Amino acid sequence: MLEIKNKVSIFKNSLIWEGERKGIVFSDNKPGFSVATPPEFKGHAGIWSPEDLFIASVNTCIMTTFLYYAERNKLEFISYKSDAEGVLEFLDNKFVFSEIRIKPLVGIKKDTDISKAKNLMELSEKNCLISNSIKPQVKVTPEINIL
Amino acid sequence: MLEIKNKVSIFKNSLIWEGERKGIVFSDNKPGFSVATPPEFKGHAGIWSPEDLFIASVNTCIMTTFLYYAERNKLEFISYKSDAEGVLEFLDNKFVFSEIRIKPLVGIKKDTDISKAKNLMELSEKNCLISNSIKPQVKVTPEINIL
Repeated sequence: MLEIKNKVSIFKNSLIWEGERKGIVFSDNKPGFSVATPPEFKGHAGIWSPEDLFIASVNTCIMTTFLYYAERNKLEFISYKSDAEGVLEFLDNKFVFSEIRIKPLVGIKKDTDISKAKNLMELSEKNCLISNSIKPQVKVTPEINIL
Repeated sequence: MLEIKNKVSIFKNSLIWEGERKGIVFSDNKPGFSVATPPEFKGHAGIWSPEDLFIASVNTCIMTTFLYYAERNKLEFISYKSDAEGVLEFLDNKFVFSEIRIKPLVGIKKDTDISKAKNLMELSEKNCLISNSIKPQVKVTPEINIL
């Protein structure tokens, strides 16, 4: 962690337009996937839109941040699922995401770990690097279950 | 467009942790795909990370915004490709994306359309709704080619 704190990291990707309002996005040796204008803006259903990717990046960042803290603090957990939604509005003459809501569901083994799991979710909410880089508030409301 | 300006749109997705630092993200009837902590944070290579998705959302938004303006202004173009890179740094005691660079390459038919294409790229840079929703500056440096 110390190592990366002292350097700049670059994340790259490319895309190619494929006609209509669709394209393919790719990056290094990752599987490429289709992207498109969403139906809300007269695009295509069933294809990931920029709006979807934006909300997915926040949802995933909360998870990867939680995984980091869980490992570091030796929290035993069994499952992690999370629903995310982003609210897009036309405000001050432009479209913006005004709020993002993340609802993680964490399954743990021992009821004595409930407060630890809650604390680590709070840390994840505070330190997710995508949340740090965006304007809308990211509200994380976790639910911790004993499985 | 007027219709969507007067309402709030919600973009949703879900994810499930699959062990190690990996998960699957899905949304409605779109194809699910793997996500993971990136190698920079001791994660997995060859899998889309939250950081990648964030930069991909900006890259794709510039394209979909351009497609909107190109159609509206009847610009004839043949191809659109775009490279994106995001700069992640540790600043003021937290990780943030400090800058995003987008390099679209637009192929057009007529040299008389060069300035029109440039203007529409500028409009796209200004009005991309993901750019409106994030903190880092998004620098778009388009190249217009006659094919």
